[in-house]
Amino acid sequence: MTSVPSETTLQHPLDSFFSPSSIAIIGASREATKIPGMLLTYLRRNGYGGEIFPVNPRYDEIDGLACFSSISAIKRPIDLAIVIIPAPFVLGALEECAAAGVKNAVIISSGFAEGGGDSADVQQDIAALARRTGMRISGPNAEGFYNEARRVAATFSPTVDVKPEAPRLVATRKRIGIVAQSGGIGFAIYHRAKAMGVATSYVVSTGNEADLAAGEILDYMVQDVSTDVILLFIEGIRDPGNFVAAAQKAAAVGKPIIVSKVGRTSAGERAAASHTASMAGWNAAYDAVFAKYGLIAAHDIDEAVAIAAAFASNPPPKGDRVAVVTVSGGAGAWVADTLASEGLAIPELSDKLQAEIRALIPSYGSPRNPVDITAQAVHSGGLQKIIEILSRSDEVDIIVPVLSLSSETRMPLKIPEIKPVIDAQSKPILIHSYTLPSQFARNGLGEAGIVVFHGLASLGRAARQLARRAQFTAVPSVAADAVSTAAVAGYLDRVSGSLSEYESKQLLRDSGSALPDEILVRNRTELSAALDRIDFPLVMKIQSRDIPHKSEVGGVRVNIATADEAAGAYDALLENARRHCPDANIQGVLVGPMAGRGVEIIVGTLRDATFGPMVMVGLGGIATELFKDVVYRPAPLGEKEAVAMLDELRSAPLLRGFRGAPRADVAALAQLIARISQLAAGLRDVVAEIEVNPVVVHPEGEGVTILDALVVGAAAKP
Amino acid sequence: MTSVPSETTLQHPLDSFFSPSSIAIIGASREATKIPGMLLTYLRRNGYGGEIFPVNPRYDEIDGLACFSSISAIKRPIDLAIVIIPAPFVLGALEECAAAGVKNAVIISSGFAEGGGDSADVQQDIAALARRTGMRISGPNAEGFYNEARRVAATFSPTVDVKPEAPRLVATRKRIGIVAQSGGIGFAIYHRAKAMGVATSYVVSTGNEADLAAGEILDYMVQDVSTDVILLFIEGIRDPGNFVAAAQKAAAVGKPIIVSKVGRTSAGERAAASHTASMAGWNAAYDAVFAKYGLIAAHDIDEAVAIAAAFASNPPPKGDRVAVVTVSGGAGAWVADTLASEGLAIPELSDKLQAEIRALIPSYGSPRNPVDITAQAVHSGGLQKIIEILSRSDEVDIIVPVLSLSSETRMPLKIPEIKPVIDAQSKPILIHSYTLPSQFARNGLGEAGIVVFHGLASLGRAARQLARRAQFTAVPSVAADAVSTAAVAGYLDRVSGSLSEYESKQLLRDSGSALPDEILVRNRTELSAALDRIDFPLVMKIQSRDIPHKSEVGGVRVNIATADEAAGAYDALLENARRHCPDANIQGVLVGPMAGRGVEIIVGTLRDATFGPMVMVGLGGIATELFKDVVYRPAPLGEKEAVAMLDELRSAPLLRGFRGAPRADVAALAQLIARISQLAAGLRDVVAEIEVNPVVVHPEGEGVTILDALVVGAAAKP
Repeated sequence: MTSVPSETTLQHPLDSFFSPSSIAIIGASREATKIPGMLLTYLRRNGYGGEIFPVNPRYDEIDGLACFSSISAIKRPIDLAIVIIPAPFVLGALEECAAAGVKNAVIISSGFAEGGGDSADVQQDIAALARRTGMRISGPNAEGFYNEARRVAATFSPTVDVKPEAPRLVATRKRIGIVAQSGGIGFAIYHRAKAMGVATSYVVSTGNEADLAAGEILDYMVQDVSTDVILLFIEGIRDPGNFVAAAQKAAAVGKPIIVSKVGRTSAGERAAASHTASMAGWNAAYDAVFAKYGLIAAHDIDEAVAIAAAFASNPPPKGDRVAVVTVSGGAGAWVADTLASEGLAIPELSDKLQAEIRALIPSYGSPRNPVDITAQAVHSGGLQKIIEILSRSDEVDIIVPVLSLSSETRMPLKIPEIKPVIDAQSKPILIHSYTLPSQFARNGLGEAGIVVFHGLASLGRAARQLARRAQFTAVPSVAADAVSTAAVAGYLDRVSGSLSEYESKQLLRDSGSALPDEILVRNRTELSAALDRIDFPLVMKIQSRDIPHKSEVGGVRVNIATADEAAGAYDALLENARRHCPDANIQGVLVGPMAGRGVEIIVGTLRDATFGPMVMVGLGGIATELFKDVVYRPAPLGEKEAVAMLDELRSAPLLRGFRGAPRADVAALAQLIARISQLAAGLRDVVAEIEVNPVVVHPEGEGVTILDALVVGAAAKP
Repeated sequence: MTSVPSETTLQHPLDSFFSPSSIAIIGASREATKIPGMLLTYLRRNGYGGEIFPVNPRYDEIDGLACFSSISAIKRPIDLAIVIIPAPFVLGALEECAAAGVKNAVIISSGFAEGGGDSADVQQDIAALARRTGMRISGPNAEGFYNEARRVAATFSPTVDVKPEAPRLVATRKRIGIVAQSGGIGFAIYHRAKAMGVATSYVVSTGNEADLAAGEILDYMVQDVSTDVILLFIEGIRDPGNFVAAAQKAAAVGKPIIVSKVGRTSAGERAAASHTASMAGWNAAYDAVFAKYGLIAAHDIDEAVAIAAAFASNPPPKGDRVAVVTVSGGAGAWVADTLASEGLAIPELSDKLQAEIRALIPSYGSPRNPVDITAQAVHSGGLQKIIEILSRSDEVDIIVPVLSLSSETRMPLKIPEIKPVIDAQSKPILIHSYTLPSQFARNGLGEAGIVVFHGLASLGRAARQLARRAQFTAVPSVAADAVSTAAVAGYLDRVSGSLSEYESKQLLRDSGSALPDEILVRNRTELSAALDRIDFPLVMKIQSRDIPHKSEVGGVRVNIATADEAAGAYDALLENARRHCPDANIQGVLVGPMAGRGVEIIVGTLRDATFGPMVMVGLGGIATELFKDVVYRPAPLGEKEAVAMLDELRSAPLLRGFRGAPRADVAALAQLIARISQLAAGLRDVVAEIEVNPVVVHPEGEGVTILDALVVGAAAKP
């Protein structure tokens, strides 16, 4: 029995794309140094086992292979056509492929949507052809893909070129699958991972995604048993439904996804837009989706590879306590600083453990943590023994040996001694070399299943992500109809712009949020009736859809203490509105109690073009405005996830009883955030934005008070 | 004429240390794989041109060199003794060296202060011997040094081992000097820099610094004409005077210093303390000193090397506008994001410039910025031409070509075409390879004077630091006696703990700071007199050195509007003090006007154990407490530097007219910060801390008001 599926168990619709039994190269060439020639060369040199059909009317044969004048001339079943002919001829070739029953195609040719204009239309036609015929099409403008297990090098990337004399370094048992919207980056990740000895299942570049998009490829990697860790490079997701479903599935089965998203700045976005015709989208929404499903964001290529390498070569840690074992005090201090600044703990070891270690190192070493074994303990073999002791200890969860592996002839670790430790590994062991590791050391340690981490910052990030991911639990999904939209729909069909505060609050109230008892009064009689119900002091505010900024027109009066004051305020509010906004349609004056004290919070929702409704939370004042201390999540969400959002705020301590203040009613706030997120999700077609600003969070047990609210209808924000 | 000094121009006292004409190796050995043997091997293999005298009573000769039984047996002038014998014998050997007239020694042997106990005393004795005899001593526990120009490999680091068959890659005209308190890291930096082709002048490890410390070595690098860029790794400075003087000199002559400081976290500090017996110190003070003198902090080894490489291979940029020129859209987007997130500008290019570029790239490329030239333009030679066009353009200040340099046989840049562009280089050109660059590419480009930046994050950091450093100007130094300490000394000789608010304010007033007209009243008569002088509303506060927290004992009354209220408040304040603090020595009640509105700021000073008085500034409230938004600088400083401090605050916009508020009187605040810093510096022997919290900064032209002040005498904080 083997865990790698045999031919007969292939079942996924894209199996024939990734593991084709036969490949046609449309536009094959004898010129080995140009892209069409490289495609054929790399395919054969990597030992592809299926049939290859070069197609080019100019040749009868290429390098010993029969060459066909057209697809239709082949007259054999073809699983995959690699298309590398000038853009204007691509559509015709694809029609021919479809007619000949070709199952899949990957278009390497460039010059489509990324240039704008007519060629963008051709890309539309390609997409339509795929839908019409059922032939699945990758690209155009793709760098192809590489299936390592089945040796399918359907790419012109020189990174898959293999030299027979150079044995491949494979230091990890687990394999990473790389999905990239940029072929350059996808294969660069592969190139860097290969150098570290990280095993790969697939490298897939998706190009312009006329048909097959990154979300669907991600889904393939998630279900693929030969892929243990997924590394994703994206510019903008075109199939968010597939993407989110795949991310959710990966979270459920515990398959880590490391993601790098570019187009984060205007220049990056400009670049992403120009070269794959993608829209980079609103990055806060991407980050929110990543956070929800536990995707691990990496902002640097070496960081992404290091994190992938750490996951591919280690079990999950039980906690965040790291032992640093170093031959250089300075390097150990730097590693300890780096790990600690990533939020990991470097605990001092117990006296007992220190005594065990002290016996293995010279007097001028240190058995504390970092454990400074000195060069001496390398010579005496103490290094392996100390790693073994720490492996067995329950005082640490991760071990980071810090070594110099630059020598081409010698190595501080003895393979026969360290291999059994690695084979029995129950916690992550991340080996860092502060000098650049030699190929000799990489190869030797690779045989023992050890990856060498040469980057200090990326080592720290990898350790952090190992520890964080081990804590991640997929949040239970919340039904989008958790809020009865029927109960609130009445408000919305009338809305062409913003609702007034009164209407907005009524909507929130009807959807289940608790609000203070406030009364809209339209004359002196209604005012008197309201004063019988609401205790002084009062706040009174003009209500009109046409006056969104009430304070600016003298539309708010606070601390009203008597009935006389209330009457005067009523007149003044109406008079101010008439004077400043003569054309405004006035609904009346909202009368309510002054709120008690608490922490002021902003809760809002908006609709992202890619991922739909998002909910955001932040603290009022400079925390949100100046320090950008806000957290987003895709809506809808439940109360537990709302609490997790609040915990992510840097200003969260203000809710937890900061400097002697009472703890705030976080449970009530979380309930409000959840309700609002569910409302935004349920009404996604009619509501563009909800803003509750501020909501006062009272001390624990005393709930929250929404002071102001604004609901913006979808029609107002197309 | 050459810029490298000839033998005869050597003048610095440490010249005979770094460029010895003769070297004795005390403890030399025939065992080439152990440290003593490696010292001799590397020294000879690197081609040291002076005389070598191995010292070891067990041998007559080692590898063809006469071996001496003792130092005294050599009977020839010796510039440098390398000592590698067990710790207990080191002191005796040094005495012998001094007696024989040896000028310098470097102690490789370990087992001194880093182990604590008796051996630490030996280190004291070594220091005393150096002082007594004038022999300069490096180490103990050092990894030695390497002088590349004169081929002095006085180290056992395998990184200096040279293979005759491997030609050395040198891609930079300028040279970096490496000074490290950890030999492991110092030579690891060298190893990584060498792999990138960065030329080196010196690598110096300083070990336990019994005599020669990092500050003095830094000073040597600053004055050394063969060192253009300095790379510093420190754990804790033992000679801060030398260090600051050298940093100041480097700032004045414009020689960049890149510094990595470890021991930033408790674990890192523990490590640093255990292995070189250093005290890591208070890192905010280090960062403040670095900021003042323009030292460039690097938190990662590759980042440090990349920054050094950028300085060693480029002229300073005129601004922060970067052109990214890429063959891969995805890689270009990632580089643009990285650079933009480092604060650099990636401006869109003018229509004219775009038109010039468009002529050189295919239609599906992009002439905007990032400029996506596509692989096609590499083949057509457009890459070089576009770099040349951008070199001439005044629209950008830095050029970042983004390429794939993984091939072992081909290169996208044509050396004959790019070399003239590099030779005439007037702005930085930083070449990034998103795949790992091959040795072939590194060597080829190295010949043209091009360094390849393989790290994405470190490339971004290097570009940022190039641009930042070009803006750096050394601040004029402020005399420590800018404040007349004579005028204020009277307050301090009486102080054993804290001064009261009244006394603290009087001290500030006498030293030149403007304060509101406040009066200390000791009875009803004095109160009446005070009310004649100060306008209502008033604030009244109990004054006692024994009551530092006045609010907590009911010792503050605000908004006092009438003489009756004032009289009542007077009685109440005294009564509260009597009740809560019966033993307090009451000075009276301070009567002053209520302050107008403004932004609340905290200004403070403290004394750092390494660098002396520091001044700090932050905004009141959560900005300082929660977001740690404070800035430190060594005291004293002038008003210009105080303004620069304020600009570094993330909450600085609050002073600049945030959301329609009036701009605050930054000039008055800067004057106050400068005065307080000068006071702290002038009184460094008697004042431990000054805290002015809060000071209200009024709108522009209206000054500042110190609401509360506290001066803590040195005796109170030993």
